[in-house]
Amino acid sequence: MQGVDPAWLPDGAFRPIGTRRTLIRGAGPLVDTVHGEVAQACRRFGGRVVRAAGADGTAYDLVLELTGPEGLGSEGFTCRREDGVTHVTAYGQAGLLYGLFHLVRLGERAFSQDRQKQAHRPALALRMLDHWDNVAVHPVMGQVERGYAGGSLFWADGRARGELLGRVRAYGRLLAACGINAVAVNNVNVHEVEARLLTNRIGEVAAVADALRPYGIRVHLSVTFAAPMVLGGLPTADPLDEGVRDWWAESTSRVYEAIPDFGGYVVKADSEGQPGPFAYGRSHADGANMLAAALQPFGGTVHWRAFVYDHRQDWRDRTTDRARAAYDHFVPLDGQFAGNAVLQVKHGPMDFQVREPVSPLIGAMPRTRLAVEVQATQEYTGQQRHVCWLGPMWSEVLRFRADGESAVGELARGGLVAVSNVGDDPFWTGHPLAQANLYTFGRLAWQPDANPYGLLDEWIRLTFTPTRSEESARLEAGLYAVLAQSWRTYEKYTAPLGVGWMVQPGHHYGPSVDGYEYSPWGTYHFADRDGIGVDRSVATGTGYTGQYAKRWAELYESPATCPDELLLFFHHVSYDHVLHSGKTVIQHMYDTHCEGVEEVEEARAVWASLAGLVDPARHARVAERFEEQLRSAREWRDQVNSYFFRKSGVPDAHGRRIY
Amino acid sequence: MQGVDPAWLPDGAFRPIGTRRTLIRGAGPLVDTVHGEVAQACRRFGGRVVRAAGADGTAYDLVLELTGPEGLGSEGFTCRREDGVTHVTAYGQAGLLYGLFHLVRLGERAFSQDRQKQAHRPALALRMLDHWDNVAVHPVMGQVERGYAGGSLFWADGRARGELLGRVRAYGRLLAACGINAVAVNNVNVHEVEARLLTNRIGEVAAVADALRPYGIRVHLSVTFAAPMVLGGLPTADPLDEGVRDWWAESTSRVYEAIPDFGGYVVKADSEGQPGPFAYGRSHADGANMLAAALQPFGGTVHWRAFVYDHRQDWRDRTTDRARAAYDHFVPLDGQFAGNAVLQVKHGPMDFQVREPVSPLIGAMPRTRLAVEVQATQEYTGQQRHVCWLGPMWSEVLRFRADGESAVGELARGGLVAVSNVGDDPFWTGHPLAQANLYTFGRLAWQPDANPYGLLDEWIRLTFTPTRSEESARLEAGLYAVLAQSWRTYEKYTAPLGVGWMVQPGHHYGPSVDGYEYSPWGTYHFADRDGIGVDRSVATGTGYTGQYAKRWAELYESPATCPDELLLFFHHVSYDHVLHSGKTVIQHMYDTHCEGVEEVEEARAVWASLAGLVDPARHARVAERFEEQLRSAREWRDQVNSYFFRKSGVPDAHGRRIY
Repeated sequence: MQGVDPAWLPDGAFRPIGTRRTLIRGAGPLVDTVHGEVAQACRRFGGRVVRAAGADGTAYDLVLELTGPEGLGSEGFTCRREDGVTHVTAYGQAGLLYGLFHLVRLGERAFSQDRQKQAHRPALALRMLDHWDNVAVHPVMGQVERGYAGGSLFWADGRARGELLGRVRAYGRLLAACGINAVAVNNVNVHEVEARLLTNRIGEVAAVADALRPYGIRVHLSVTFAAPMVLGGLPTADPLDEGVRDWWAESTSRVYEAIPDFGGYVVKADSEGQPGPFAYGRSHADGANMLAAALQPFGGTVHWRAFVYDHRQDWRDRTTDRARAAYDHFVPLDGQFAGNAVLQVKHGPMDFQVREPVSPLIGAMPRTRLAVEVQATQEYTGQQRHVCWLGPMWSEVLRFRADGESAVGELARGGLVAVSNVGDDPFWTGHPLAQANLYTFGRLAWQPDANPYGLLDEWIRLTFTPTRSEESARLEAGLYAVLAQSWRTYEKYTAPLGVGWMVQPGHHYGPSVDGYEYSPWGTYHFADRDGIGVDRSVATGTGYTGQYAKRWAELYESPATCPDELLLFFHHVSYDHVLHSGKTVIQHMYDTHCEGVEEVEEARAVWASLAGLVDPARHARVAERFEEQLRSAREWRDQVNSYFFRKSGVPDAHGRRIY
Repeated sequence: MQGVDPAWLPDGAFRPIGTRRTLIRGAGPLVDTVHGEVAQACRRFGGRVVRAAGADGTAYDLVLELTGPEGLGSEGFTCRREDGVTHVTAYGQAGLLYGLFHLVRLGERAFSQDRQKQAHRPALALRMLDHWDNVAVHPVMGQVERGYAGGSLFWADGRARGELLGRVRAYGRLLAACGINAVAVNNVNVHEVEARLLTNRIGEVAAVADALRPYGIRVHLSVTFAAPMVLGGLPTADPLDEGVRDWWAESTSRVYEAIPDFGGYVVKADSEGQPGPFAYGRSHADGANMLAAALQPFGGTVHWRAFVYDHRQDWRDRTTDRARAAYDHFVPLDGQFAGNAVLQVKHGPMDFQVREPVSPLIGAMPRTRLAVEVQATQEYTGQQRHVCWLGPMWSEVLRFRADGESAVGELARGGLVAVSNVGDDPFWTGHPLAQANLYTFGRLAWQPDANPYGLLDEWIRLTFTPTRSEESARLEAGLYAVLAQSWRTYEKYTAPLGVGWMVQPGHHYGPSVDGYEYSPWGTYHFADRDGIGVDRSVATGTGYTGQYAKRWAELYESPATCPDELLLFFHHVSYDHVLHSGKTVIQHMYDTHCEGVEEVEEARAVWASLAGLVDPARHARVAERFEEQLRSAREWRDQVNSYFFRKSGVPDAHGRRIY
């Protein structure tokens, strides 16, 4: 696209394919997409591409073909190279497309030496982005709720932005290249205008679906549970009411008339003010299953979010623990959800803080299809003004053995979902380096046990194509230095030891240690002059640790065994409590906050040193954001350190200035 | 007006006049207004009114007449009763109108016994309300900035609300009845649309002026200092530039063509982001005098606000003191302002907190006409959801001998100004009891040394007319009990001992002890585990106490002599510091916060007991607001007490529950 950053698909990434002779065997719309990609690369770099069922493969450098089933499903593929010919085979068209992008990632290595046949298939069938995009600009939340990359890719001025469908297609291409196959096109908080996408405005959704379909991406729609009343004029939305069920069945049938490969519904019910089944004395399984029944004839899925808690809590009440809520609400329903109802669980028990334990719900519902939701948009992690590459955090979550044995990446049979970090910004993500989060998410959804640092390397190599190759090493090393530790750096200068929050209420940017301390949101640190943290133990606290599998329950129960980085999430300890690291809690706070700022200063310097190796516009955008990141990091350091010095009275062991 | 609360002018208030025979002598538009008022009362209650220059006054119960000058100016009047006839005389028409409303306040007493001739005239020539009304709804601040009484009386949908000019007239009538004679019709933060009121939209201002003129009220306009650039297309707004001066002269001339009795301009310059003379290296006297020169030929006045400070302060910097700012900026300019330039000074050095010392600027500019600004709209005092009658606070300010000898009410030669608390709410002020603030303000502007509690009685008697007279005493006692102490009650449960703030940032409603602690606004309490307060002494602090006249400077300088209620404004003391009251600071906090809530509970019970004595709609509105006030007061109590208990570790001497 003109004027839009090519991200991880710059023209040069197709040079290895575009300089060669390619044979494509097979037919169908996604094979057409594959052919189009190769043909364009050949036009640019002088190669050739032929579509012919019976041609002799040995006359080509590359053969891409649809074959019989090899047990790899519709999205898997194989790749091998022998006798000077690289072969990619797939049973499904999508598999061939993913195979093509696999070659793009391999680059020249795809053609430089023989390789054994290797099978690839996604570990998770659903790899999804949820866009919290509003059709009509919300008076408080704006066009994109928690969006930090400009307006919406899909919506503007209260309707689908038809003029940008070319850009939506380009977006689909980027997503396919990292393995994503589903997109929910509107905010889970479904307001009045957005509700109508389900019915008389489904045509606008269909237009988006048309733009994404060539890249194997299905669209999903967030719907309001109250739709039968709001849109259908019914007196109730009771999920067991026959009229309501009929209304959903008919409405869903019309959706599939407009979009035959429609993915399904996303629902936030009985959560933060959204309507839901509780109003009718029904369970969340009743609610989800009603929608599942409507979708079932067409192969659709309902994604039912487990983000249910009391957001009007009394801060005086220390017995209610928001962290417990999802488990308490949903575990009793295990086994009651329909086969095409997926329970979508946030990865942590709270809300996308920089550090949380893994949600105990994930290990506790073996008879339910779970999807795990992460947040690519950096709501609490710097809002795309700070560099914060989340790959290591997500990887830790996905490799966590939630039930004591299986990893989260295995338990998430309903898929991996991220809240999108993309908008109509020319760099897609506001901060150009935030593209790495989007890429890493897609690749981890394909292979949850992948080494995230390997994926970071992959993203760097694809995205940054230096003009002179001898500078590659310096550029790649610099980018790696800026990004690899950035999440831990961010953690250091913000809320310490897993306690979370301490952000400005409402917009969630910048520090306010007591910002959520006396609020109704259930998000407290309980700091007093002696200590800080939330006692969630079974013995003396809220009992939350008891929601975990035995292995973790025992580990988290005692401050002696609880990992340092989660200590304040699980325990209230005194400021002079000694961590496993050997430092006291208060000294740890002072030290990490100073270190975090120093690390930002270093990263900024590294970035500055890359000027000339990076496209000037991209370099300037990142440099400008580094100034804000540094200012903000210093603000975090000084507010947090001052707050705790004033409260604890403990001086910094190193005598640094505290205000 | 139909559907609008009659406030302190219910029909019954005119019964004493309306049942009698009245003679009116004199001519002119305001005499017409007087006649219209009396005639309407007579139609309602059976009396008679005659306009005749030569008639025999002894045949009437009441004679209202214009006479020769008696040294009372255009707004003064005399009142006497002899030989069974009540006489009101005035030289100016406005005086006759004020005399009529004086009779309304006297009620039957005006006709029940002889009284010596008494002269009345306002102590202050300018008694003004500033409306912070926006023409176009501001995305953050709404239709009325800091407005808690619905929309604007003057503006809606981006233009003057012609359909409501009858209501504007009714508003003018209420204002005249309490002595107010000037209204600024738009927000001092002048945005794009509002700027144009000065030029091509002056006709809309003229329509408002027409509606208010019959009650002796002149309109003023807030203008942007950048008007010559924004509206005039000039390259500069430099106040010494000839082109700029010419532009203002011409524009002002056109304003007076539209509104011959136009009052003048209100300007917020170089303050909180508004443009001003600093950009051109000019002083505020230069800026004000330029506008004064443009207004001078027409008898207009410029009100130049002294609310100038650094609103981008670094909280780490303890040497900068916002409280010093107005004095530091303006005292060097004393004597430089033109005769028709009025420097408008907020009564306290900060911003309308529930308790502040009087601004030292007020006693320090003898050669400058000062207007003192108070805030009727309850921005920091409960936002018209809480009962908070501000009469005693304003009275304390007005009687404070700012220069060591003269009272503020004498030093405010440029007038008394209040930020209006009125909107398009049917009760005018949202909370019906907030009408008492508007009334008290007007009466204090007329007579700054009046006993505020007497004015409260006056307001109660005028406003509440019980159906059965034996219930008057109970109703009046109940209303007095609810209102008289309400400001001190509010002070008790909010920020203690003059420290201020501790409110939620932005909207300023409800508690957040650290809400402004790490902000750029210069509003800090510096609480740590040992103590709290701002050291503004000369000896060890910011030197602010040195801005006062000797008497006050000495008093405030030492914690030993500083009044308890201002202690934390002037000093940083330990929690165990013993107040003059004999209590420690921390115990004072606990006690006052508990007492404040108890007092709200009591006031609510008193109000409940008045059901049946008060119009049901009015009773219900107040009862509903009391529920919110009580909830909020408890929230204040619990947050403040918990915050300081957690920080100080000092238990409550009475063992009450702290969280």
